[in-house]
Amino acid sequence: MKIILQEVGPRDGLQAEKQIVPLEKKEAWIRALMDSGVDIIQVGSFVHPEKVPQMAETDKLFRRLMKDKRSATVLSGLALNEKGVERGLACGAEMFYLGASASETHSTKNTGVGTAQATQRIIAAAKIAVAAGKKVQVSVQSAFGCGFEGPIPEDRVLDMVRSYLEAGLRKISLADTAGHATPAQVERLFSAIFKLDPTVECACHFHNTYGLGMANIYAALRVGVTTFDTSFAGLGGCPFAKVAAGNVATEDFVAALQREGLRKDLDLKGLITVARDVAAHFGREMPGFVYKIDS
Amino acid sequence: MKIILQEVGPRDGLQAEKQIVPLEKKEAWIRALMDSGVDIIQVGSFVHPEKVPQMAETDKLFRRLMKDKRSATVLSGLALNEKGVERGLACGAEMFYLGASASETHSTKNTGVGTAQATQRIIAAAKIAVAAGKKVQVSVQSAFGCGFEGPIPEDRVLDMVRSYLEAGLRKISLADTAGHATPAQVERLFSAIFKLDPTVECACHFHNTYGLGMANIYAALRVGVTTFDTSFAGLGGCPFAKVAAGNVATEDFVAALQREGLRKDLDLKGLITVARDVAAHFGREMPGFVYKIDS
Repeated sequence: MKIILQEVGPRDGLQAEKQIVPLEKKEAWIRALMDSGVDIIQVGSFVHPEKVPQMAETDKLFRRLMKDKRSATVLSGLALNEKGVERGLACGAEMFYLGASASETHSTKNTGVGTAQATQRIIAAAKIAVAAGKKVQVSVQSAFGCGFEGPIPEDRVLDMVRSYLEAGLRKISLADTAGHATPAQVERLFSAIFKLDPTVECACHFHNTYGLGMANIYAALRVGVTTFDTSFAGLGGCPFAKVAAGNVATEDFVAALQREGLRKDLDLKGLITVARDVAAHFGREMPGFVYKIDS
Repeated sequence: MKIILQEVGPRDGLQAEKQIVPLEKKEAWIRALMDSGVDIIQVGSFVHPEKVPQMAETDKLFRRLMKDKRSATVLSGLALNEKGVERGLACGAEMFYLGASASETHSTKNTGVGTAQATQRIIAAAKIAVAAGKKVQVSVQSAFGCGFEGPIPEDRVLDMVRSYLEAGLRKISLADTAGHATPAQVERLFSAIFKLDPTVECACHFHNTYGLGMANIYAALRVGVTTFDTSFAGLGGCPFAKVAAGNVATEDFVAALQREGLRKDLDLKGLITVARDVAAHFGREMPGFVYKIDS
């Protein structure tokens, strides 16, 4: 069984933190995650620095990490359009993560255009990255429900997946942006995608808003999803908001896999050490479970 | 699909709390849980009051709750031997939860005798409860691993299950006492039990030590387990220990089920209100997720 870990903490996790993490600290965490053997790391976002100040130094971070890179870990960056991809290409990003929302409201609020147009924009940007020889993962955001619209019709998600596949984009992620997914829904939706095309490489991205992140990961694993987004220490849960909505902690998922005899190549102790450093840095308890256990 | 909720917060959750909860408060919480429609509530333990001071008033609590009982919720109590069952019968308990450990070390430390002898003791006590017309659930503790012994041979668990079945005890729970279970293991072990006898009524009891509680619940659900132990607010996670080891929060599981269209008869809002009261009572954040979300 192929299981690919995609670490999203430095991107999705840290962007939820108001306190800007110094570049040196981010770099140290990402290097430690690379040393632990994680397959892909989303280093940051190529978005407007004023919109997400925590991501302002993403280009600089990529340059530092790529300069002397020997690790097999693939370094990825989020982009929302062609301009973002161009920035990523300029600083050496090895992979791009691009997505459009299946919620018309969410899409319009975020990008100014509805789902269909946003999808075409993402495909255009993705093609530039592919043409430059980069790996590309495209995602359907709000695939399992939307804070604005509520339930999202599964056909709309499948239409987006079809558009990606027709454009030759075969690494497809379904993102549970607001944390609405349930295990039964996860199995149903991914199964429908594999019915469209059994050879798609599927990835999943869940938030723990309702405490279902790990259950959803296992539901996805069961139906053939191979890439799993997690964040070190469970970063993303904001202590000042009422909703704790981080991803599943990377070290928690790795601990579970290793107890099942899988991915023994990953350095769990190293991951726990990074998670503890994250908790020390922010001076609060993080959502991860395993890093709190006495070793 | 039949899904039975067994609330273990007043028993397994509160016994982890050093601060004694006043009888009136316990009664109010249990009454609110009954009003929410939970199927079974483990009210407390019939154990020596000096051993578990938090459970010292269990008999009194049962008498208060049974006096004017109209709710369909079944009130259960934990017993470790015939004496415990006799106490429960005297105060009106409707159901008994009795268990022995599959770990020889755990069994010997807890009961003074090994697994085989402890199992026979539990069966003898269970038979008294059955003879008195009571419902009985028997459990295999440390079924998925043990803090002292590490992995537990599955054959030892199955031998205990066979003993229970031969004694006519057909409601059988596997308890992950130390929180070691993984989803793959959960599916394997329960499937082996259903191979022994497809008509057994299986229950599961998981702790969230490694953040796998909900994933394990869904794994159990998938292979035919029908009774699920949860604790309101996720009680059981001790803030003073390094290991957060509560059960899955009742309201989190109910929220997930209801989003999947199941158990719409349960009063989720009522459960969230109780969970919030628990957090207010202890003056700290509890492990549950859903009660923290703005409604």
